[in-house]
Amino acid sequence: MKKARVGIIGFGTVGSGVAKLLTTNRDFLKKSVGLDIELTRICDTDITTSRGVTIDPSILTTDVSAVIDADDIDVVVELIGGINPAFDFISRALNSGKNVVTANKALLATKGIDLFASARANNACLKFEGSVGGGIPVLNGLTQGLAANRIQTIYGIVNGTCNYILTKMVKEHIDFGMALKDAMDNGYAEADPGLDIDGIDSGHKLAILSTLAFGKYTTFDDVYVEGIRNISSMDIEFAARLGYVIKLLVIAKENAGKVEVRVHPTMIPVDSQLGKTDGVYNAIEITGDFVQNVLFYGRGAGAEPTASAVVSDIIEIAKRLGQSEAPLIPIGYNPSAEQESKEIMNVLDIESRYYMRIKTADKPGVLADISKMLAEHSISIASVEQLETFLKEKSAVIIIITHRAQERDMQASLKILNGREYILEDINLIRIEDI
Amino acid sequence: MKKARVGIIGFGTVGSGVAKLLTTNRDFLKKSVGLDIELTRICDTDITTSRGVTIDPSILTTDVSAVIDADDIDVVVELIGGINPAFDFISRALNSGKNVVTANKALLATKGIDLFASARANNACLKFEGSVGGGIPVLNGLTQGLAANRIQTIYGIVNGTCNYILTKMVKEHIDFGMALKDAMDNGYAEADPGLDIDGIDSGHKLAILSTLAFGKYTTFDDVYVEGIRNISSMDIEFAARLGYVIKLLVIAKENAGKVEVRVHPTMIPVDSQLGKTDGVYNAIEITGDFVQNVLFYGRGAGAEPTASAVVSDIIEIAKRLGQSEAPLIPIGYNPSAEQESKEIMNVLDIESRYYMRIKTADKPGVLADISKMLAEHSISIASVEQLETFLKEKSAVIIIITHRAQERDMQASLKILNGREYILEDINLIRIEDI
Repeated sequence: MKKARVGIIGFGTVGSGVAKLLTTNRDFLKKSVGLDIELTRICDTDITTSRGVTIDPSILTTDVSAVIDADDIDVVVELIGGINPAFDFISRALNSGKNVVTANKALLATKGIDLFASARANNACLKFEGSVGGGIPVLNGLTQGLAANRIQTIYGIVNGTCNYILTKMVKEHIDFGMALKDAMDNGYAEADPGLDIDGIDSGHKLAILSTLAFGKYTTFDDVYVEGIRNISSMDIEFAARLGYVIKLLVIAKENAGKVEVRVHPTMIPVDSQLGKTDGVYNAIEITGDFVQNVLFYGRGAGAEPTASAVVSDIIEIAKRLGQSEAPLIPIGYNPSAEQESKEIMNVLDIESRYYMRIKTADKPGVLADISKMLAEHSISIASVEQLETFLKEKSAVIIIITHRAQERDMQASLKILNGREYILEDINLIRIEDI
Repeated sequence: MKKARVGIIGFGTVGSGVAKLLTTNRDFLKKSVGLDIELTRICDTDITTSRGVTIDPSILTTDVSAVIDADDIDVVVELIGGINPAFDFISRALNSGKNVVTANKALLATKGIDLFASARANNACLKFEGSVGGGIPVLNGLTQGLAANRIQTIYGIVNGTCNYILTKMVKEHIDFGMALKDAMDNGYAEADPGLDIDGIDSGHKLAILSTLAFGKYTTFDDVYVEGIRNISSMDIEFAARLGYVIKLLVIAKENAGKVEVRVHPTMIPVDSQLGKTDGVYNAIEITGDFVQNVLFYGRGAGAEPTASAVVSDIIEIAKRLGQSEAPLIPIGYNPSAEQESKEIMNVLDIESRYYMRIKTADKPGVLADISKMLAEHSISIASVEQLETFLKEKSAVIIIITHRAQERDMQASLKILNGREYILEDINLIRIEDI
């Protein structure tokens, strides 16, 4: 029986999950996939705190070299996250000829192509299923199951924290602050929730999806990112009235030979599969030229689901241990392949329908001025509604839905409008996608 | 660049789709996966009717040996369906050392283990992603993406025809006959729809899912199968009132060391992901011990989606052409592996909640007799409702929802009840699953 010896770097939430899985299911995996996967070593700076997993304490070490440089390790599993020192650790592991599994989306979205250059130079495998969608095998689906297709669009909900908050706001009619607090109280949001609610985590994941789908390395810097801090109960209710629900959507799509890659709050039809994806669940919908639309849905985070993805990578690597053939590198991460010539589209060149929530002073001529200004920027209004919600402070809220317009025109309009003296707070803009 | 030469047997709907995909995306695949996949030959008894695909007529043949026995074919794609002569063709292809891709669920559910014995003996690949869920890469997900897990349950909607009919009945309040006619008129049901609406096609697919999930070869004969012919508008409406929707569900789950494998109309919560799967779409929800629940959703049939799955198999085979290592055979199909010792559970041993629609003569004592008889069989009634729907013929309809009961007791009760003189037509039984 083939044997693979695994060393984990990072004994945190996911690391503990992987340790638990490898321990619990070791005998099962011998039978089901015919591989003996041994958890040989775990490295962390803290090796004394209990993680609730029963493991032989002799495999614990604080010395990362005992994983990266050891002769008795075949697969290094990096689960510390962040750019440094993860980049250094993975690079060293690859350069010493080890195969690597990681769930580090930030690193892949920043230095993915460098990592794969090291992997290629050393004929080593680098796999990362756990980096997007937790336990959902969406990267495997994209690179193998849908490999026959030219991918056209990817729409996804890939951050459970944001989706939990937005779902709470819809179901319980509470505002963003309360929903965020609830998420924190229930362990669904970090003490410092910025990485999630500002869309950064989603942006990292989108960079990975886009790279795999469109064959061109996409970095986090290529992604246009907005978070969900400005979503109000009023936006949620307006969306519902129009048959939409607001989700933090990741979007990658081909458009005139370029690729749009963007993350922002988006109104999508409430009865679409993504619109029906609630709570901490993730879902990714991929459209290809032959398969049409396929959706992958499941738990996008958590120790055990993510461990499932990490170990699926270990299994794939273990299967090919001892083979001489170079592992296949996805074209988008392959520095020596002729990558697709697709460019990333400037977000100003995209088109969308828009929802605008405008808080104004309640005085004559405001709507006329706004309408005129939008018209001058070729933005056509589909519907408008004025609410006198704040009688005391003599302010009103105007909701405008536009027809399809260009982002460049919208941004120019916003810049001017936000400078008007009657505008009481920055206009909130939400894009509408009829997926 | 690696080259794979493909020969298709069966130039029908899916065969044409595969031919179209291989022709349209050949150059794309050279770049994206680094493989030159050449459509070298197509065999069919009819090579004159146009399929709307532009191909070199010189690759067409009516001689199956020109595919199976030819030296210039690496991968044989069997798309004629049915047991014979498909079994013979695939066996011959494998025995002449060729790799085979098929979408033939009936064959896998009947002679899968024999096919894999030939594959193993000849060190050849046999792949079948297109056999379940059309373009949805669910088998790849199950065998690779979720490989780290002990699978606990599979629930699926895997027949688009039935789901189209049931969805029509719900949305348009029409009866089964009208919905079936609509499906036929729109090309979603065959002239002879029995294979679909009697649950046979779903049973074939479930046998495959169960084999892969539980590591033990499951045949169609192991599957308990009921179709949807007896579903009435009244059942649909009652289900809705209770918060359920009726779907033809395939179920495979571990239960006390055995495996339940069954296909039958099932009431499931209307707001579950499967409950929300409408029309011709398929969805398969898989629960594993670590990943928890994952759902795969997409188009479960059609030329182009199925072609996507078939070509994904061709790509995986092409990648390993020239490698000496024996291809991995899923344990459930591996005649020489120690298969899981799980037995298939007798359907009489399962437990369920039940919905019973009972058409009776409208006379005193009927409900008392039914209640007494159920009680004698340890079946506890959760709710009962009597409708006087047919005043003219002095009949009534009684709807009973039971608590959890054993199938053996329910079948025994049905046998007795259906013999009662006051029962005007066979009782319609629908199982309830709170997935």
